[in-house]
Amino acid sequence: MENVVVQNIQRADQSVIDGLRDCGVSTAHEAQGRRGLLADYMRPIYPGARIAGSAITISAAPCDNWMLHVAIEQIKPGDILVLAPTSPSNAGYFGDLLASSAKARGCVGAVLDSGVRDVRDLKEMNFPVWSKAIFAQGTVKETLGSVNVPVVCAGEIVNAGDVILADDDGVCVVRREEAAAVLKLSRSRFDKEAEKRAKLEAGVLGLDLYDMRGRLAERGLKYV
Amino acid sequence: MENVVVQNIQRADQSVIDGLRDCGVSTAHEAQGRRGLLADYMRPIYPGARIAGSAITISAAPCDNWMLHVAIEQIKPGDILVLAPTSPSNAGYFGDLLASSAKARGCVGAVLDSGVRDVRDLKEMNFPVWSKAIFAQGTVKETLGSVNVPVVCAGEIVNAGDVILADDDGVCVVRREEAAAVLKLSRSRFDKEAEKRAKLEAGVLGLDLYDMRGRLAERGLKYV
Amino acid sequence: MENVVVQNIQRADQSVIDGLRDCGVSTAHEAQGRRGLLADYMRPIYPGARIAGSAITISAAPCDNWMLHVAIEQIKPGDILVLAPTSPSNAGYFGDLLASSAKARGCVGAVLDSGVRDVRDLKEMNFPVWSKAIFAQGTVKETLGSVNVPVVCAGEIVNAGDVILADDDGVCVVRREEAAAVLKLSRSRFDKEAEKRAKLEAGVLGLDLYDMRGRLAERGLKYV
Amino acid sequence: MENVVVQNIQRADQSVIDGLRDCGVSTAHEAQGRRGLLADYMRPIYPGARIAGSAITISAAPCDNWMLHVAIEQIKPGDILVLAPTSPSNAGYFGDLLASSAKARGCVGAVLDSGVRDVRDLKEMNFPVWSKAIFAQGTVKETLGSVNVPVVCAGEIVNAGDVILADDDGVCVVRREEAAAVLKLSRSRFDKEAEKRAKLEAGVLGLDLYDMRGRLAERGLKYV
Amino acid sequence: MENVVVQNIQRADQSVIDGLRDCGVSTAHEAQGRRGLLADYMRPIYPGARIAGSAITISAAPCDNWMLHVAIEQIKPGDILVLAPTSPSNAGYFGDLLASSAKARGCVGAVLDSGVRDVRDLKEMNFPVWSKAIFAQGTVKETLGSVNVPVVCAGEIVNAGDVILADDDGVCVVRREEAAAVLKLSRSRFDKEAEKRAKLEAGVLGLDLYDMRGRLAERGLKYV
Amino acid sequence: MENVVVQNIQRADQSVIDGLRDCGVSTAHEAQGRRGLLADYMRPIYPGARIAGSAITISAAPCDNWMLHVAIEQIKPGDILVLAPTSPSNAGYFGDLLASSAKARGCVGAVLDSGVRDVRDLKEMNFPVWSKAIFAQGTVKETLGSVNVPVVCAGEIVNAGDVILADDDGVCVVRREEAAAVLKLSRSRFDKEAEKRAKLEAGVLGLDLYDMRGRLAERGLKYV
Repeated sequence: MENVVVQNIQRADQSVIDGLRDCGVSTAHEAQGRRGLLADYMRPIYPGARIAGSAITISAAPCDNWMLHVAIEQIKPGDILVLAPTSPSNAGYFGDLLASSAKARGCVGAVLDSGVRDVRDLKEMNFPVWSKAIFAQGTVKETLGSVNVPVVCAGEIVNAGDVILADDDGVCVVRREEAAAVLKLSRSRFDKEAEKRAKLEAGVLGLDLYDMRGRLAERGLKYV
Repeated sequence: MENVVVQNIQRADQSVIDGLRDCGVSTAHEAQGRRGLLADYMRPIYPGARIAGSAITISAAPCDNWMLHVAIEQIKPGDILVLAPTSPSNAGYFGDLLASSAKARGCVGAVLDSGVRDVRDLKEMNFPVWSKAIFAQGTVKETLGSVNVPVVCAGEIVNAGDVILADDDGVCVVRREEAAAVLKLSRSRFDKEAEKRAKLEAGVLGLDLYDMRGRLAERGLKYV
Repeated sequence: MENVVVQNIQRADQSVIDGLRDCGVSTAHEAQGRRGLLADYMRPIYPGARIAGSAITISAAPCDNWMLHVAIEQIKPGDILVLAPTSPSNAGYFGDLLASSAKARGCVGAVLDSGVRDVRDLKEMNFPVWSKAIFAQGTVKETLGSVNVPVVCAGEIVNAGDVILADDDGVCVVRREEAAAVLKLSRSRFDKEAEKRAKLEAGVLGLDLYDMRGRLAERGLKYV
Repeated sequence: MENVVVQNIQRADQSVIDGLRDCGVSTAHEAQGRRGLLADYMRPIYPGARIAGSAITISAAPCDNWMLHVAIEQIKPGDILVLAPTSPSNAGYFGDLLASSAKARGCVGAVLDSGVRDVRDLKEMNFPVWSKAIFAQGTVKETLGSVNVPVVCAGEIVNAGDVILADDDGVCVVRREEAAAVLKLSRSRFDKEAEKRAKLEAGVLGLDLYDMRGRLAERGLKYV
Repeated sequence: MENVVVQNIQRADQSVIDGLRDCGVSTAHEAQGRRGLLADYMRPIYPGARIAGSAITISAAPCDNWMLHVAIEQIKPGDILVLAPTSPSNAGYFGDLLASSAKARGCVGAVLDSGVRDVRDLKEMNFPVWSKAIFAQGTVKETLGSVNVPVVCAGEIVNAGDVILADDDGVCVVRREEAAAVLKLSRSRFDKEAEKRAKLEAGVLGLDLYDMRGRLAERGLKYV
Repeated sequence: MENVVVQNIQRADQSVIDGLRDCGVSTAHEAQGRRGLLADYMRPIYPGARIAGSAITISAAPCDNWMLHVAIEQIKPGDILVLAPTSPSNAGYFGDLLASSAKARGCVGAVLDSGVRDVRDLKEMNFPVWSKAIFAQGTVKETLGSVNVPVVCAGEIVNAGDVILADDDGVCVVRREEAAAVLKLSRSRFDKEAEKRAKLEAGVLGLDLYDMRGRLAERGLKYV
């Protein structure tokens, strides 16, 4: 029950992280067996951003953003801040000052199971955030939390160093130790999708492409 | 309790459909007696789209998008896919591959009482979707449903061939057999609104334009 | 229990109002002691707008927008309409016609604890609205309400003439009589933030800038 | 778009209705192919009630309970009032006076996609209600609606004369014309459940009772 | 922006308070012009309780229950604690120890726009609470708030000394200075309801009792 | 990404489990540092139940309850079933037949981040369940999941063999390996609460009992 900061965490290879980012949230989620999605209330503060990076996790008291300052010192270039309050809170834990600091250390974005504020500035800075709410509500700096311990963020376990993917579809976590394997599966899926897309665009029906007619008839579907 | 695909559905005249699209959701909703709106949680995945078309309805099992493939075969140019799960689900029933296929058949958009994914791709394809959620959660293809039967989508009955209007204000259904009459009423309303707008922009007060002062006084409104 | 329209309300100085707008919602909220925010469900209908003005308050019956017409007559240039239904409602109380009328009187925006519609037109008119919902649902004109009485809007008391700030972070109310003092505190805060931002961008850590290391150690934070 | 009261509706046989009540919501829902449930937010105002009856449907304006008075005249002994506002509302459409009147006509309960009030009195009267909310908010009597037309109540289509079942598990609608068939299937299911329950209580595992081990192994389940 | 405890507050006459309790939430709400209801999410922790008393108001920081201890000293027999967090929180601000202390001072119940815990003990103590949530989440004692200042609790302004009514229908506030007048109106309404109830129970229809048939026909209601 | 059933799990001592049950959810949650609570939407299907036991965890596909049958074989007397769907679902995963089977193996209750049904029967059987919803919606048996792997249930990690406490305040998880230590802290807390309660009931104020007056004055609280 101590409050700790874990300093030396392992990260996936940057090439794996970059590859996963290019595949995107939906593809990686499917590739790893339909796992790893954070809750659908996690939305980007502006459309079009697409990031991947290693998680710096933060377990924080409700309405208290003290630990974000502690976490920022642990950032290495390419990392993503992942905040989970110990009790539900929509308060604005994160804003443009923290983003300036995080960006200076190489942080590529933040994923907050809470509120965020200064979103106009964040957009101008091109610093993407996925959050549960946009809310200016201020926080305090009174209670300790922990950094780089396992957290539950928006319904999903995130360990320090896990790979976080985030785009317009939401947020997905890939376990660090599975990242290379998931990338391989994601790429394979991604490539097959390109082929399928070409056929579907040319007018081939999914019913035929996936050979579904027999199974549908067998199950009893009636055309009337 | 059979699962069926109704193949030959009737549609409203394209000129009526186009006319309704130009009037917009709010105007048509008022014109038909403040009826036909789907729930306010149905939001577009990007702003600015404005469509109208005939409904291809899909009743689907929760977290199962099999029937979408069946439905796409039933699309005629100008149609809109309308999906209603038989039990609430935010899963991502629809994404870029299904959109590619639907678009190849002439589909102009989708209305889903569920989640949608690949929204970045859908925006690039210029394929608009209104949905309850954006969620990458994958679905299965295990359980039959039905196509072109009456469904309840976001709180409103939709029959195959009903006219669906969707824009930034949400989604409205107009019964196929009432569509021409509703268009007439909508246009009349639309034209009157243009007149009123001009007067209001010139500074005439609604209190005077609609002659409200007498009724307000009679009801007892006090100016202090 | 009478329904009244209060006609002569006091307003803050325009220079104070303008100053608060430039500081923004988050800064003013903090400057006045973390008070005054409306609920986080109040969202702008399009991003990027930033307004401040004096509140014209409207207490309206559920699904009845009659009092908006009454309120518009009370608008002076720079004012903001603030609507609070007496019972929760997502109906579309406000649309492009009312906006045309309000704009003609100098209104700079609206804050509605309800739904809004015609959002495409409102965006084209550059008339910003913050609301609980976007919903085309029509309203009636049957029941009296009041104008420029104190209301509770999205969880916060708003008096006629209070200063309303609204931007991408949400909506904040500043009491008219405190507005000048809050501006002073906001500017001071704003200026200090610029300094801090520069240091943080240069890589100084918040831990050092705010001298937090001692207090963290004292509370028992362990680095492992 | 007229407002009508349909006076002569057909009802299922009372013996069928009684039989369905004894089977209960969950069993009938399964028996008719997992269809017919109203949304899970429909909760009884007190536990333990269990009713079935023919639906008297009411389409009502938001926050307006005028049509309930009209509907009560249409009640025959054993009927259930089913209210659907045309736009979402949690207002208290129904209370002890309306219940007294409905009960005097033989009504056995009410299902309201809205609020209800006077719940202490309703419990004392032994008049069960399933609703979306308990809320004292008063309503008006200003706008017409319709009685005994098809409505969407809590996400499900209800026609006048359909059989409504309600118990602690929620509310289920059975189409009038399918009621006898659904009863037969429900009873068969109900009887089989009694047998199964006896075996399960005796310690037989579902894995064996339903012969699942083979299919689980085939799908790849590993015991470790 | 100071934190204060207002010590000498005015209260309504106990006979008025008792009279309002006997009329109940729904009746008093109607009698004062359909005003004063707190949001419908405010539910009792057990059914059957019915209280009225003078409000001791508490404005508290999110997840911080320090001010409840301060407030309890201000209680006089018959009072009700009314807590409003300055930012939304479901934390368990109140439990059996605070209830023991409050009860010892004569407090008759609590109304919390937050969570409550120890509900089993509270029920055994016969100490009723209306709250937004039941949640064991602990709070801290770090940040000042105020006692007996006006607060917004569940969407409604409550001043210290206002009369709070709470029963199974929810919670209603009656302004202290209007309490005697509202009691008079409530009693009149209450008495009329008894008469009406007798007639309705005897089978007289509301259509006839309230003489509605003419107005319905005039508005165009059709019987078919 | 395999689906597994972990068969030999470790459990805490029954005496520790029983001791924690007697302390209750709120006390144990505080004693372990305000950790371990499941989300506040987890509510008991009837009041008054109070259980503790070792978790048999179930990771299940959305709307698919197949793995519950698998899990029941793993139950030892005193265990509690803990179900977490891999995607949000309110479907009725659990009802009286499964409860009969689980009870026959010694199961003392279930905690479901989903819906439950047959709640009347479950109450008669005295089999308590905490769930997110009561919903009769049926499920299928098509997709594998896992048993006794770590899951996230209602926002909290639960490992097989962790101690689950559930009562009217909600649900709390205590790590198996910390259970004895948490019991000690809980008992100490519990005993101190009894002392405090006695003093508070006797009229001693918390302000004095906890010696708060000095710190309040120091922080600037003003009595007016």
